[in-house]
Amino acid sequence: MEFKLLRLDLSEWKALEEKVPESILRKYIGGRGLGAYLALKEIPPHIDPFSPENKIYILTGPLTGTGAFESGRYHVVGKSPLTGILGDSNSGGQFGPWLRFAGYDGVVIEGKSDEPVWVSIVDGEVQFHPAKKLWGKGVVYTERLIRKEMKTPSEHIGSILSIGPAGENLSKIAAIMNDKYRAAGRTGLAAVLGSKKFKALFVKGSRKLEPVDKEKFRKESKKVIEKISSHSISEALGKFGTAVLVNIINSHGAFPTKNWTYGTFEKAFEISGEYLAEKYLVSNKGCWGCVIQCSRVAKVDKGPYRTPVSEGPEYESIWAMGANTLIGNLEALIKLNYLANDLGFDTISLGNTVATLMDLYEKAKKGELPEEKAKELFSLLEDIEPEWGNADAFIQLVWRIAYRHGIGDLAAEGAKRLGEYFEKPEVPIHVKGLELPAYDPRGINSMALSYATSNRGGCHLRAYAVSFDVLGAPEKYDPLKIDPKKVELVKYQQDYFSVIDSLVVCKFNTFATDHTDYVGLLQAMTGWEDLTADELLLTGERIYNIERLFAVREGHGYQDTLPKRLLETPLPDGPAKGRTAKEYLDAYLPKFYELRGWENGIPKPETLERLGLEEFIYIVK
Amino acid sequence: MEFKLLRLDLSEWKALEEKVPESILRKYIGGRGLGAYLALKEIPPHIDPFSPENKIYILTGPLTGTGAFESGRYHVVGKSPLTGILGDSNSGGQFGPWLRFAGYDGVVIEGKSDEPVWVSIVDGEVQFHPAKKLWGKGVVYTERLIRKEMKTPSEHIGSILSIGPAGENLSKIAAIMNDKYRAAGRTGLAAVLGSKKFKALFVKGSRKLEPVDKEKFRKESKKVIEKISSHSISEALGKFGTAVLVNIINSHGAFPTKNWTYGTFEKAFEISGEYLAEKYLVSNKGCWGCVIQCSRVAKVDKGPYRTPVSEGPEYESIWAMGANTLIGNLEALIKLNYLANDLGFDTISLGNTVATLMDLYEKAKKGELPEEKAKELFSLLEDIEPEWGNADAFIQLVWRIAYRHGIGDLAAEGAKRLGEYFEKPEVPIHVKGLELPAYDPRGINSMALSYATSNRGGCHLRAYAVSFDVLGAPEKYDPLKIDPKKVELVKYQQDYFSVIDSLVVCKFNTFATDHTDYVGLLQAMTGWEDLTADELLLTGERIYNIERLFAVREGHGYQDTLPKRLLETPLPDGPAKGRTAKEYLDAYLPKFYELRGWENGIPKPETLERLGLEEFIYIVK
Repeated sequence: MEFKLLRLDLSEWKALEEKVPESILRKYIGGRGLGAYLALKEIPPHIDPFSPENKIYILTGPLTGTGAFESGRYHVVGKSPLTGILGDSNSGGQFGPWLRFAGYDGVVIEGKSDEPVWVSIVDGEVQFHPAKKLWGKGVVYTERLIRKEMKTPSEHIGSILSIGPAGENLSKIAAIMNDKYRAAGRTGLAAVLGSKKFKALFVKGSRKLEPVDKEKFRKESKKVIEKISSHSISEALGKFGTAVLVNIINSHGAFPTKNWTYGTFEKAFEISGEYLAEKYLVSNKGCWGCVIQCSRVAKVDKGPYRTPVSEGPEYESIWAMGANTLIGNLEALIKLNYLANDLGFDTISLGNTVATLMDLYEKAKKGELPEEKAKELFSLLEDIEPEWGNADAFIQLVWRIAYRHGIGDLAAEGAKRLGEYFEKPEVPIHVKGLELPAYDPRGINSMALSYATSNRGGCHLRAYAVSFDVLGAPEKYDPLKIDPKKVELVKYQQDYFSVIDSLVVCKFNTFATDHTDYVGLLQAMTGWEDLTADELLLTGERIYNIERLFAVREGHGYQDTLPKRLLETPLPDGPAKGRTAKEYLDAYLPKFYELRGWENGIPKPETLERLGLEEFIYIVK
Repeated sequence: MEFKLLRLDLSEWKALEEKVPESILRKYIGGRGLGAYLALKEIPPHIDPFSPENKIYILTGPLTGTGAFESGRYHVVGKSPLTGILGDSNSGGQFGPWLRFAGYDGVVIEGKSDEPVWVSIVDGEVQFHPAKKLWGKGVVYTERLIRKEMKTPSEHIGSILSIGPAGENLSKIAAIMNDKYRAAGRTGLAAVLGSKKFKALFVKGSRKLEPVDKEKFRKESKKVIEKISSHSISEALGKFGTAVLVNIINSHGAFPTKNWTYGTFEKAFEISGEYLAEKYLVSNKGCWGCVIQCSRVAKVDKGPYRTPVSEGPEYESIWAMGANTLIGNLEALIKLNYLANDLGFDTISLGNTVATLMDLYEKAKKGELPEEKAKELFSLLEDIEPEWGNADAFIQLVWRIAYRHGIGDLAAEGAKRLGEYFEKPEVPIHVKGLELPAYDPRGINSMALSYATSNRGGCHLRAYAVSFDVLGAPEKYDPLKIDPKKVELVKYQQDYFSVIDSLVVCKFNTFATDHTDYVGLLQAMTGWEDLTADELLLTGERIYNIERLFAVREGHGYQDTLPKRLLETPLPDGPAKGRTAKEYLDAYLPKFYELRGWENGIPKPETLERLGLEEFIYIVK
């Protein structure tokens, strides 16, 4: 197993090739796991995330771009400017595979360039280019200009990763974009690239990725692909995209509405995947090598929300920018999604931040903000009227946030800091600074534990408890019933998903598979014939712990909780009416710590020993 | 008479004070005249307007900020990136006076800074400040941040000149802004400041401006102020603002509509000054020391075009962004005006450029563009649908042009270059590269001569022939009748207005005054007791010739003509139906050259001798 890492020193515009030792790969696999390990080793504690000492790891895993199903993804890791702890995010499209075809399994962005720069890697050949003419540009136009420069007009050949103006202007809710419409959105790592003046990375090449045991790889791949392609959730995702969840989650009363005030949205159907398919869908689409094809290609032909043929919107984007702000117009959401992608935002964080602003605006008008703060808010708004449901104001806001004009200068800092600035820290809904995604834990109780203990902050992708609490995969639980078995399931998902993100394959596989399905594949790919299922799951646990160690080292060990509104205010509507998240979290958290071998959220030394993390025990002592 | 010039060398962040010799002042007065002289002496021929060798002269005149009426203005001069010849523009508000109060009568911006910079001048003390945090920001927010930094929150104290993102991103239609909503808009000089990385200039101070003969100055001032304040046009301007012209010019069939296709607009009333006053006006307002108060303060409370209390819109902005694009919604125009100001655009050039784009889009859909060009246009548009009358598309476009995204990257170059790029050079309506203002010369025939012979390109402010052809000041002519007397009037206005722009006072004085009214004032201010009315008018002629010499030196002497559409296509509607501008221009131009002592647009050596411009005869030889 070979893993070629390319270090790009932006301070010197120099590239250095490096091979990751196989012993490290065996312990951390690739992608998210390898990124967490390297970040903990290489990023000094307590640095400003915008200092040149921060690094961004753009990593594939051993399965990326191979004949393995759903392997068109890559993972990004670095210290997050939004949360102050380890940030990471994952994205699909074509970029991951093309990075490997270009000759490298990972790229590390280091240092800081004096002037804007972009880099091309073509069949192992690395070139630094001045990016002055790309700086300030949207993602779509940036890709156009780079493809022109690289004489590679076809979007089927090569791939581009870039940041938009949001990242350039150090917005803490900026997303790293690739293939125009795909986002490694969470934790604001695009702003770290912005701080390094790194605009884009073009990759192209013809390197072959050969498994050690081709025949076994083919067989294993076939076996798993059948599981996935025949699963009912895969089918639903292909048909209606991720937005198939709108009606499902809404019917469970867990569809956060009006900045997490309600659990149902009266206009849910009008922003659902079904409605999208009926009115605006051009086709479905998949990432590299995908059988599910959950991505949407949509357009709006006419009117104020005209949008060209483009990808999206996903469930999370529709929810965050829609129900959570009371915008029930799907055309407006398609347009907003296009703009958010083009200017380079994490749509979950953006939607939450705008919902926070709308909430603050309402409170200011009611006289519930300190007088001076209300006055400042009104004045900073200029031509924006952030009333609930005002799509036109939101569209204008996207520009103002991207370029940090007026109120946008504050909103660019994310929901938490926006709320704090106006002395209403309880208004923004976040965990550890990261805005929460589209599931109210008061209505899906395992999500309370999943959110609170996520290592990157408010996130549904560390443990997607919706899978068993709502969708019945692998089996159905009652989302409102407290059940100790769910703690085990959350922990299992956290560990299993750590493996998934390190291989790197798509998490949508996990409705149909468990960790045992990957053992044969990884053996065949790497030649690690003695790899067992238990070792693989332990590797996941190791990764989950090493991420936590990064937070502990930063002094962030004790924040496994939820926002006050979710903990204390009962849901006023829907099937989960009257529920709070406190009851769930109180029931689950102690057992979770026990299972993990953590004390108050901090791994015990013996836990680290058990996981082979002895070298990091110093952090918890 | 003292004139203190401050040279700001941005390359070294150094300031150097200099006194302009009185002999030069007597020949060029100040403002526009002094700027033209200095530019011709100091800016080398044939340089790229974005090279560090270009200079921007920000100048007041002897009457600026004094007790003289309407003296709240300043003038800017430099080599224009839009036209390639001498560019200049004039703006009101408070900046001119405050610059003088701060201790200087003019500032020259020279060289080029490595990093964004802004400068403050407080009672003669000059300070350079890094402007990294202001770069990319809109004008309104920039002023807010600077006032915070300078601890001068009240907008009645001190003043700020700045550029918006349009200027930073070298848009050739960018405006230099001051006092948030006032623009030295024409000829794109903001982009020159952008190329020098100069963001803003804050001025404040308490220098007294004393006339040599105070008593005489007071008397002269009183005499002229009575003339102005009692004039009916002054009254109308105070009541309805410049947009009082909408209905007047429309009724003459000279209100350019749909990119100069028609001469009347069916929705003219709905975008008129009268309608504005009825629906959206908060108050009227004036520049420093003004009795006319033609400026508007307006707002839109609710809806997609919400706009906070802010200044404007003016007649030209309403026309260019409205009738010329078929947008007949005044709320949308108020919002567009706000955005155009905030992002730093010349609204005349912006409106014409967007009208050009709409025209090209229509032609592309009809198959009248080369196929490859049409394809490129459609692809570059992204989410913009530039259909006639589409205000939402225009709003989105303002952002895209300011930051040069997609089609905005081309539109930022102005109408002429946009039309040429798509191989339709006849679509943009301009003279010498400068987009034309709101009067169709087919319906107001003296404007044909005024536009064609304007030294800065398509402009109504070198000779405002509308004054006599339409408004009857000083006396009424038939706008459709060819009358050789009008050639003399145009020439007179060109010379007289050169004086006005050099004094510097407001051109709205000229409805009620002529050049003789300023002799006593200037005598009293400067102590030039032997100054005569003839000398003053000759000075105006000298200035008009020296501007022309700049163009001749650049090789642009022979472009005294009009766009093909105006020359050849008869107006299809209104009172001027059937007229073309060719008939007028053919009748007027030869006589004009004769009066001026020019040959084919180039001053004859003997003319330069007569004007005391011997040192520049080398240019025409």
